[in-house]
Amino acid sequence: MNEMLKIFAGSSNKPLAERLCEHLQLSLGKVTIETMESGEIYVSYQETVRGYDVFIVQSLSHPVNELLVELLIMIDAAKRASAKTINIIMPYYGYARQERKSAPREPISAKMVADIITTAGADRIITVDLHAAPIQGFFKIPVDHLTALDSIIDYLQKKNIAHPVVVSPDAGRAKTAEKLADLLDWPFAIMIKNRPNHNQTEITHIIGEVEGKTPIIIEDLIDTGGTIVNVVEALKKRGANDALICATHGLFSDQALTRLQHPNITEIVVTDTIALDQPAHDKLVILSLASLLATAIEIITNGGSIATLFKTE
Amino acid sequence: MNEMLKIFAGSSNKPLAERLCEHLQLSLGKVTIETMESGEIYVSYQETVRGYDVFIVQSLSHPVNELLVELLIMIDAAKRASAKTINIIMPYYGYARQERKSAPREPISAKMVADIITTAGADRIITVDLHAAPIQGFFKIPVDHLTALDSIIDYLQKKNIAHPVVVSPDAGRAKTAEKLADLLDWPFAIMIKNRPNHNQTEITHIIGEVEGKTPIIIEDLIDTGGTIVNVVEALKKRGANDALICATHGLFSDQALTRLQHPNITEIVVTDTIALDQPAHDKLVILSLASLLATAIEIITNGGSIATLFKTE
Amino acid sequence: MNEMLKIFAGSSNKPLAERLCEHLQLSLGKVTIETMESGEIYVSYQETVRGYDVFIVQSLSHPVNELLVELLIMIDAAKRASAKTINIIMPYYGYARQERKSAPREPISAKMVADIITTAGADRIITVDLHAAPIQGFFKIPVDHLTALDSIIDYLQKKNIAHPVVVSPDAGRAKTAEKLADLLDWPFAIMIKNRPNHNQTEITHIIGEVEGKTPIIIEDLIDTGGTIVNVVEALKKRGANDALICATHGLFSDQALTRLQHPNITEIVVTDTIALDQPAHDKLVILSLASLLATAIEIITNGGSIATLFKTE
Amino acid sequence: MNEMLKIFAGSSNKPLAERLCEHLQLSLGKVTIETMESGEIYVSYQETVRGYDVFIVQSLSHPVNELLVELLIMIDAAKRASAKTINIIMPYYGYARQERKSAPREPISAKMVADIITTAGADRIITVDLHAAPIQGFFKIPVDHLTALDSIIDYLQKKNIAHPVVVSPDAGRAKTAEKLADLLDWPFAIMIKNRPNHNQTEITHIIGEVEGKTPIIIEDLIDTGGTIVNVVEALKKRGANDALICATHGLFSDQALTRLQHPNITEIVVTDTIALDQPAHDKLVILSLASLLATAIEIITNGGSIATLFKTE
Amino acid sequence: MNEMLKIFAGSSNKPLAERLCEHLQLSLGKVTIETMESGEIYVSYQETVRGYDVFIVQSLSHPVNELLVELLIMIDAAKRASAKTINIIMPYYGYARQERKSAPREPISAKMVADIITTAGADRIITVDLHAAPIQGFFKIPVDHLTALDSIIDYLQKKNIAHPVVVSPDAGRAKTAEKLADLLDWPFAIMIKNRPNHNQTEITHIIGEVEGKTPIIIEDLIDTGGTIVNVVEALKKRGANDALICATHGLFSDQALTRLQHPNITEIVVTDTIALDQPAHDKLVILSLASLLATAIEIITNGGSIATLFKTE
Amino acid sequence: MNEMLKIFAGSSNKPLAERLCEHLQLSLGKVTIETMESGEIYVSYQETVRGYDVFIVQSLSHPVNELLVELLIMIDAAKRASAKTINIIMPYYGYARQERKSAPREPISAKMVADIITTAGADRIITVDLHAAPIQGFFKIPVDHLTALDSIIDYLQKKNIAHPVVVSPDAGRAKTAEKLADLLDWPFAIMIKNRPNHNQTEITHIIGEVEGKTPIIIEDLIDTGGTIVNVVEALKKRGANDALICATHGLFSDQALTRLQHPNITEIVVTDTIALDQPAHDKLVILSLASLLATAIEIITNGGSIATLFKTE
Repeated sequence: MNEMLKIFAGSSNKPLAERLCEHLQLSLGKVTIETMESGEIYVSYQETVRGYDVFIVQSLSHPVNELLVELLIMIDAAKRASAKTINIIMPYYGYARQERKSAPREPISAKMVADIITTAGADRIITVDLHAAPIQGFFKIPVDHLTALDSIIDYLQKKNIAHPVVVSPDAGRAKTAEKLADLLDWPFAIMIKNRPNHNQTEITHIIGEVEGKTPIIIEDLIDTGGTIVNVVEALKKRGANDALICATHGLFSDQALTRLQHPNITEIVVTDTIALDQPAHDKLVILSLASLLATAIEIITNGGSIATLFKTE
Repeated sequence: MNEMLKIFAGSSNKPLAERLCEHLQLSLGKVTIETMESGEIYVSYQETVRGYDVFIVQSLSHPVNELLVELLIMIDAAKRASAKTINIIMPYYGYARQERKSAPREPISAKMVADIITTAGADRIITVDLHAAPIQGFFKIPVDHLTALDSIIDYLQKKNIAHPVVVSPDAGRAKTAEKLADLLDWPFAIMIKNRPNHNQTEITHIIGEVEGKTPIIIEDLIDTGGTIVNVVEALKKRGANDALICATHGLFSDQALTRLQHPNITEIVVTDTIALDQPAHDKLVILSLASLLATAIEIITNGGSIATLFKTE
Repeated sequence: MNEMLKIFAGSSNKPLAERLCEHLQLSLGKVTIETMESGEIYVSYQETVRGYDVFIVQSLSHPVNELLVELLIMIDAAKRASAKTINIIMPYYGYARQERKSAPREPISAKMVADIITTAGADRIITVDLHAAPIQGFFKIPVDHLTALDSIIDYLQKKNIAHPVVVSPDAGRAKTAEKLADLLDWPFAIMIKNRPNHNQTEITHIIGEVEGKTPIIIEDLIDTGGTIVNVVEALKKRGANDALICATHGLFSDQALTRLQHPNITEIVVTDTIALDQPAHDKLVILSLASLLATAIEIITNGGSIATLFKTE
Repeated sequence: MNEMLKIFAGSSNKPLAERLCEHLQLSLGKVTIETMESGEIYVSYQETVRGYDVFIVQSLSHPVNELLVELLIMIDAAKRASAKTINIIMPYYGYARQERKSAPREPISAKMVADIITTAGADRIITVDLHAAPIQGFFKIPVDHLTALDSIIDYLQKKNIAHPVVVSPDAGRAKTAEKLADLLDWPFAIMIKNRPNHNQTEITHIIGEVEGKTPIIIEDLIDTGGTIVNVVEALKKRGANDALICATHGLFSDQALTRLQHPNITEIVVTDTIALDQPAHDKLVILSLASLLATAIEIITNGGSIATLFKTE
Repeated sequence: MNEMLKIFAGSSNKPLAERLCEHLQLSLGKVTIETMESGEIYVSYQETVRGYDVFIVQSLSHPVNELLVELLIMIDAAKRASAKTINIIMPYYGYARQERKSAPREPISAKMVADIITTAGADRIITVDLHAAPIQGFFKIPVDHLTALDSIIDYLQKKNIAHPVVVSPDAGRAKTAEKLADLLDWPFAIMIKNRPNHNQTEITHIIGEVEGKTPIIIEDLIDTGGTIVNVVEALKKRGANDALICATHGLFSDQALTRLQHPNITEIVVTDTIALDQPAHDKLVILSLASLLATAIEIITNGGSIATLFKTE
Repeated sequence: MNEMLKIFAGSSNKPLAERLCEHLQLSLGKVTIETMESGEIYVSYQETVRGYDVFIVQSLSHPVNELLVELLIMIDAAKRASAKTINIIMPYYGYARQERKSAPREPISAKMVADIITTAGADRIITVDLHAAPIQGFFKIPVDHLTALDSIIDYLQKKNIAHPVVVSPDAGRAKTAEKLADLLDWPFAIMIKNRPNHNQTEITHIIGEVEGKTPIIIEDLIDTGGTIVNVVEALKKRGANDALICATHGLFSDQALTRLQHPNITEIVVTDTIALDQPAHDKLVILSLASLLATAIEIITNGGSIATLFKTE
């Protein structure tokens, strides 16, 4: 292992950072992160970073704005302390759903986030299953875009599900579902819905066969879980079995976990891109990406090809 | 009309620029564009642009690289001649399909194009139906993203098509088809295909009902027409009627127009974002966006809201 | 008044923005600002900003990181909606106390904030009594740096305080106290303290005469009020009268307001750069800077010299 | 040899890239470059470049705009694939003759080319005999500016030419001819001409003695060859012998090679900065710069001084 | 005249700035420029520039480094005082002779100067007869490049010189001499010289006829005058008459004016781009460019075409 | 020691550069720096810098503008000669006192200097005791900010001064004096003064006890010495002993050294950040920072923590 490498964790996902360090046989770097009474964040690295390749692990999960500003301050401090390179491991990229103007006078916040991270001094982003792949192009610095799809497929294949059907919860995400269906050689269906405003959805019909089948619903992200409950109930109404939910990112906003303890859901599979900040329940399965990310770091610092990490791309 | 406004045309779509000028009751600006024996392009504005809001009309159609470099040179010349602002009307944004890395060590050429246009000195982009909406976020300068969907819907509504079904030619484009179906209150189907390499496609099955119906195939772009012929034949095989093809951009590469004189295609509807550089045939209908673009220019120079231009967003 | 001017308020200090608009005889601009269940902020201007000089009123008070990200998103949305210029009225500039490295591997967060606001697209900053004046130089865009000192002096002069002494609570802020003392022709003293860590202070002695005098303690900012209570008690112990506290910015973190209802404090004078988010008490006096800021906006949009606003500089 | 070095060839001059690799005992890097039916170029590196010093060999010869855009895409792909540095070996820098405004409202295309190559992500340019030396200053990145003059002088010295005279084909290029004359200790003459428009020239008289002498005409570039034929005929008319033509870059546009099979031309000497894309004829001599460029690459990657490469500077 | 225009003078050429203001019927703007005991320059505008198009007149003549830093400080102060645009009238662009690397490890100082002026905040440069035209391309901001050649030709034509010959003092400047000769329909000759080091020259021979003729020596710049004296004496030795010297910029370093009171020089014609800082002598003729520059300012602020100013381009 | 390291000296402080090289057992790099008759500076490195970490030693002392431009040219030349990194050792940062706007329409020259040094191509600044610490934040590149306070304290402790009192010459610099007093456990006093204009000061009174004590006056910088003489005389008038003066930077403008041979001054202690350009006198003590700076360079090139260099931070 390259000796000039240090890994630090922001506040969002320290457990993942620790698992990463275990894989790499490194100690997690020491950094003081405090919140003043004024709400201002104060950061101070407790060990030298001069000349090191610094990796900062930070997902933009809850509370997203605090974590974003904390990250910017960590980058600034590392840059001014003469880190050789500053690499951001951002397993979950928040604000990714604001990646286009869908109404007039909206921001493209995902681009703004990319710009300010770069301005603060980041040299590279390592991220997982962006909500929209073109977000890679929002950056001028290199982006290593990893996927959890292989891990999810491995998990699903071992389960021997009878009469499965991959279901895309809306038309806009059909491509990922099609890909999963193709790789598993399973059939495929799409829910057709409207999104009258930002947090609501209404399903109007389904295209594809679901009756008597076990739906595998694939999403990049579980937020409030509202959409998924609607999808599950709509599937049930059309004669489908209870469903299994897969997503890379388990954001679980609001009462999501409770909401997903739904009788028509048998299992919820997510990864550890976001640290669970509430008690898990027994339907929740969390797959770890620590090994995937550790290998990516090794390749980035020692050379080699990230392409070797993927079966599905 | 603002008197400090001049419109110039690159080589790609002078007819559209002239229609635009007619709407705005302006003369098209005079500019010399020559290609030297060395292949280098030489540009010289034949009238002053000092202090003017300059609009350059240029689609990145055939031959895309020549037109891109020509545009960059036109921007450079306008900037050095002290234009007040340089606004690019790029009805068709070429390279938009290279907007993400889908394999390792690929470029994101759509971002590179955005960066070099901005570097050359552009202050604003006006474009139509980008292949992927997040390309807006590739720019730091304002992007006015217009849509031809209203024009296409107007045209379709007047035709009184019996038993229509909107068909998305692949899962990745399902969102647009869903939107069209929703606005016209028509049913909706998706073709499931693989894309083994860059110019080939293979349809495996269809989800949604098409038998006995008239397919309205919606695309942002018609390139070689190969996909569309495959889709049309697959639909026919499944009992659908002859199809009508709609797309914003008629690029018509290779033998596309000939290929689309297919017995199972009744009509091909595109707009004038790209100038037709070959004889039309009688199945081809071209809707003009000149009025839409002229109104956008008026709003940009005189103030007001671009949002008033859209019914569908 | 310039007709191409619109003022919008972020969430931090809408009352000040409204007072500003009153002075300018303008309606406050309509903008939707929502926080999603995911914690992400969503912004959408409800009226056109195309071609307008947009002024956004936002103090970086509590909760500072939320308000900072909200501001960045508001800037991004205004830029993409073709605002002519984007001017930030930031009466209180948060993170200003992180304006230098005072220990190794610290950030200079005040610079990072300046950089990301500029990157997002701001064209100008209007701010009041920065914690350190060189922060002006952190920006490449113009900074109009106003002061509340005139308002505070006017208020103090009307009170006819007997035997006053201006007190600087620490050596690092002595310059402002000296200036106030000079302008009011009052004597001046300094508290000598240590700052063993970020939120604690310990007073060791006082230089200058305070016995039998009424201390006027001048600060740029009241945060937790802890320092001030220490200062007041140290003054009392050395025979001073009860004290009057003056500060431009009343941040009042934690239990500050309660803490400042101290028997040795007669009055706390601040301005409305920060909106009070808790019940006031009767020792609290709030001077409004709305008129000062309104005049600044008029000068910025119509021309003239900001210098005419100051007696004290 | 540094092991972290890879050389890739664009489409313009693969033979030179291969000769370079031979000198360096490296294999030429594998990269897929395809042109789609739409005319868009698609690039994909077929081996890892992560952490490597990448050298891309590309002359901006025929077809210049295709080759320029291809280069930009190759740079973008290398940058996003985490190349350590991206070095452009551009033996012939096209658009170099548009390096100043010689009429109003012209571009300075040579600067635009410099800017977009830098924007795309290049870290260094290695080039040969720029049409105008100040083009080096168009770049902020380092430029290694090599010369073919030593190779040409070596060749001329071996020929034992009787009664030679170095001839500058116009006043604007007199400096190079003077330098060659000085180094070879030969006399020197200048053709005085007008350039009524971009591709035409008219010789009015000659200053310096040419009668009975063998003219060695020196140019940086042979484009259409029209100027040279005029010069040769004007020299003949004034009693000079048949001429020998030397130039670094043999662009040979249009019918240049045919045109230069002129009875008054005995030999045409160029280098391999541009790949000959047409059958050579027996008067054409091509000197290879592969060894010079290979040594430059070694110095760039391993350290040392480029200055050691030149006798004539 | 545009009312939002103010002209300020740096220390280099206040007389020209005043003549300019007279032509424009404006008062010269008031600005304090002091040099502290420490050698640091202090600048303070004594009237508002907020919202104004500011023009700063500054030639980079003697003492060049003081004047350059003074200019940067004037730009910074104007930018921070909210000038609308900052336009630099730099009649003489110092460091223009360091516009290329002619030996290894040299700077390209002319580019560095362009970069720092732009960084400081300049929006436009107006300059006259740059030593090398490609310096225009060193800037990304617009450059209005004027010429004194028309004024010089007007002056020469009125003199009715018998048997004139235009002489270029070296091969590198032959183009300008050829142009002058062409416009006046006079013959033309070139001095061939070596430049063994930076301030020395040695003439070896002349090409073109000079015997019995009156040489008109044309230069962009007279520095120490050493070259010119060498040229004049070399011409005399070859039978030429006494010479007339023309140059745009009279820098007159060292003992230049004394040196040029040479018996073989009849007249020295320069313009007022550089203020004469020593007593003139009777052979010195100074043509004013104030009217030319004033017209350029009018065109820049009110619109129109700079091209109308030139007969010779 | 890292072998890829070269140190070059500008004209300001070659003796310090030589002492530095001695500590590092390196030869000082060879560079030609000439001033032309025109006043333009010409720089040429006389040994290769390709691939080296270049350190340039340059204080912005007398003559500040010459030295600043010289530095910019040295940076430009090093960058274009392919230095790996360019590190500026600027022991004294001139223009640091222009770090804020204290009156309208003033520049912030300290920021302008930071910007142009960065634009020219510097990668890092190493400096000592900046006049205002936030100047660190004017840079985006890393700044290593060293202090001479430890050296001064060491010196003072060895002197066994009886009845010492640390005196801050004005309120604005009280923080440093407080720090010194705290570290030496000595009492502390402040002079209260006005600064009616840029080079004058008037002391009105003193806070703190000075009678019968020996004042140790601490400043960052001795410029003309005028302030210090005023302070010393005011102290004497109030019964203090003769004073000892300490400052990091001895600029000694005008007649400073003569002025400081004052009967009430016993000793003047400065460091070698600025080379003394006049004869010293016997009250002047110069402490060398060569060892401190040498260690900093070692840490920067070999890794480690700069924090280990300080006792007082």
